[in-house]
Amino acid sequence: MTESPQGTAIQTPAPAALTGRRGRRAADVPTLVRRAREGDARAVARLISLVEDASPVLREVAAALAPHTGHAQVLGLTGSPGVGKSTTTAALVRALRQAGKRVGVLAVDPSSPFSGGALLGDRVRMQDHAGDSGVYIRSMASRGHLGGLSWATPQALRVLDAAGCDVVLVETVGVGQSELEIASLADTTLVLVAPGMGDGIQAAKAGILEVADVFVVNKADRDGADQTVRDLRYMLSLGGRHSEAGHWRPPICRTVASRETDNGIDEVLEKVEAHRQWLESSGEGRRRRSERAAREIEAIALASLRERMGDVHGSAALGSLADSVVAGETDPYRAADELLAQL
Amino acid sequence: MTESPQGTAIQTPAPAALTGRRGRRAADVPTLVRRAREGDARAVARLISLVEDASPVLREVAAALAPHTGHAQVLGLTGSPGVGKSTTTAALVRALRQAGKRVGVLAVDPSSPFSGGALLGDRVRMQDHAGDSGVYIRSMASRGHLGGLSWATPQALRVLDAAGCDVVLVETVGVGQSELEIASLADTTLVLVAPGMGDGIQAAKAGILEVADVFVVNKADRDGADQTVRDLRYMLSLGGRHSEAGHWRPPICRTVASRETDNGIDEVLEKVEAHRQWLESSGEGRRRRSERAAREIEAIALASLRERMGDVHGSAALGSLADSVVAGETDPYRAADELLAQL
Repeated sequence: MTESPQGTAIQTPAPAALTGRRGRRAADVPTLVRRAREGDARAVARLISLVEDASPVLREVAAALAPHTGHAQVLGLTGSPGVGKSTTTAALVRALRQAGKRVGVLAVDPSSPFSGGALLGDRVRMQDHAGDSGVYIRSMASRGHLGGLSWATPQALRVLDAAGCDVVLVETVGVGQSELEIASLADTTLVLVAPGMGDGIQAAKAGILEVADVFVVNKADRDGADQTVRDLRYMLSLGGRHSEAGHWRPPICRTVASRETDNGIDEVLEKVEAHRQWLESSGEGRRRRSERAAREIEAIALASLRERMGDVHGSAALGSLADSVVAGETDPYRAADELLAQL
Repeated sequence: MTESPQGTAIQTPAPAALTGRRGRRAADVPTLVRRAREGDARAVARLISLVEDASPVLREVAAALAPHTGHAQVLGLTGSPGVGKSTTTAALVRALRQAGKRVGVLAVDPSSPFSGGALLGDRVRMQDHAGDSGVYIRSMASRGHLGGLSWATPQALRVLDAAGCDVVLVETVGVGQSELEIASLADTTLVLVAPGMGDGIQAAKAGILEVADVFVVNKADRDGADQTVRDLRYMLSLGGRHSEAGHWRPPICRTVASRETDNGIDEVLEKVEAHRQWLESSGEGRRRRSERAAREIEAIALASLRERMGDVHGSAALGSLADSVVAGETDPYRAADELLAQL
C-alpha cells in the first residue's frame, strides 16, 4: 500500500466541501482505514464519526471498508429499560476479552433529553474497558424518542468489522420497533428480561419472541426468576416458528450480571456459539447476511431518491409544473413523470 | 370531438391488462369523460372507481380530465365524531342546490369495522339527494383506522371538478391527521364543533385551530353553545396566525342542522363566499391551489419511485448485489447506485 500523505492532509485546512458537520479537517480515508486496521482506536472513532455525520467522504469510506468486512460476528442485545442491558454488555465484553477476542460495542441511546442522564450513568459503567485497546465502545444517537436505530448503525458496524473486531455487540433499548431493527442487523439476538417485570414479558409477547435467538433472564437471584423462566418457556411452546423441525429453539439462560459478578455469562456465550454453529450449518446465517445487505442497499437507494426529491421540493421546476396542473395544461401524473425525468 | 366506439368497447370482453380490480369491462375513457361532463352520474361513478381502483387506465383518466378541471370550489368539512358532520353536509347540499349549484360530496369513511355501522346510518341520511342529478355523493375508503384520506381523494376531486361540479364537499372525521390532509386539499376548511364536547375543543387546541377557515358550532340550541363560542373566540385571540393584518380571521357560525332544520346554514355559506373572495383578492387561493398541485405531483412521483423499488425487492438483481456486499466485493453505496441504474 502506498503511504498516504496523512500528515499533510491533517495540517492543511480542508475545503468546505470536505469538512464534516463538526467542522473537522479533511479526512484521509485510506490512511484512516489502514490505521483502524492496525488497531488505532482514534482512527476507528474518526471513521464512525464520518459515517455518523454523513460526511461527503461517506462513500469513499464505505468503498475503502468493503474489502475488509464480513469477519465480525454481530450480537444484538435488547430489553426493556431496567433489565440490566449495560451491565450485561459489560460482562459479555469482559468474558469475550478473556477469550482473546477483539470486541466492538455500539450502544444506541434514545435521544430523549429526559433519559440522557440515566443512560450516561450506564455508559460510565462500561468505561472499565476504555483503556483496553482490544475494545471499541461507541454510543450512537438513536433516530427518535422510541429509540430506533440510527441509519448510520450498519455503517458503523462495517467500520468495527473492518477494524478487526471478532464480535460486535449492538445494545439498544427494547422499545418501539428497535428490537425488530436490531434483529435484522444481528447474527444472533439476545433478549434480556428481568423477574417481576410484567412489561418485559408483555413486550416479549408483542414481538420479542419472534426476534430472540437467546433469552437471558437477568437478575436471576431475585424473586420470581423461576416464574419468568416458566412464562418464557410457556410462550415459546405456543410460538409456531420454533416448534418446526430444523428450526432453532431459543434457549433460556439465567444471569446475575453486575459490576461484581458475571454469573451465567459463560453459559450465554456457549449458547451464542451454538447458535453461530447452527447459523452456519443450516445456511440461515448466509441467508441473514444476504438479506441484511439487501435491506441496506434498498434503504440507501430509497434515501438517495428521497434526497433527489427533496432537492426539487419548492424548486422552480416543481412550481411551474404545479401551475401547469392548476391551469389544466397537464395532469399530475404527467407532471410527476417530468419531475422524475429531471432527477 | 370524434365519436368513440363506446358500445363496442363495453360489449367486448377486455384484455386482462385493461380490466380493473373488480373485473369490470375495459373503460372507454374519452366516452366516460364526455358522458360525465354531460351529467351522467353513472359515468362519474365509473371514473371515480377507476381512480380508486388504481386502474391501468388511471393515467389516461387523469390526462382526459385535466383540460376540464380548475372550476370547482373545494370545501373541506371536518370535526370529531358526533358533532353532526353528515347532517351539516346534507344541509349544505340542500342550500347549494337551492342556489342552483351542482354539488359533489366525497365522504371519507374510516375503514374500522366498529364504526362502519354508525357511518352507514349517516350515509343513508344523505340519500335525500340520491335522485337529484345535480348532486354526486360518493363514499370513499379511508387509508387506515385513523381516517386518513385515501390517496385517491385528489383524483376523485378532479373527476367531480371535470364533471362540472361548482362545489365539492369533502367530509372527513377529524381524528388523526385527516384534518391537516383535508386542509391541504380544500380551498376552504370548515371545522365543526358541538357544545359540551370537551374533546372537540381539545382537538381544536391540537391543530384544528390552524386549519379552520370557518368554525361551525353545530347543535347551537344546546346548553353550552355560548361557552363553546367563547372558548373558540378566546383560543383564536391567542393564535398568532390570525392576528396579523391581511390574514383571514376565521368567523364562528352557529347552526342547528338536522333532517328537519337548516338553521344557520345560509350564514355558513355567506362566510364561505367571503372566504372565497378573500382567497381571490389576497392571492392566497392561487397559492393554495399551486401548493396543492405541487404536493400531489410529489406524492405521485415518490409513489412511482417506491413502486419501481418494490419491483426489485427480492429480485435476482438485488440478491446478487447483496451477495457481492456480503463478500466484500462492493459496498452498499455502490450497490445502491447499481440498483438505481437498473430502475
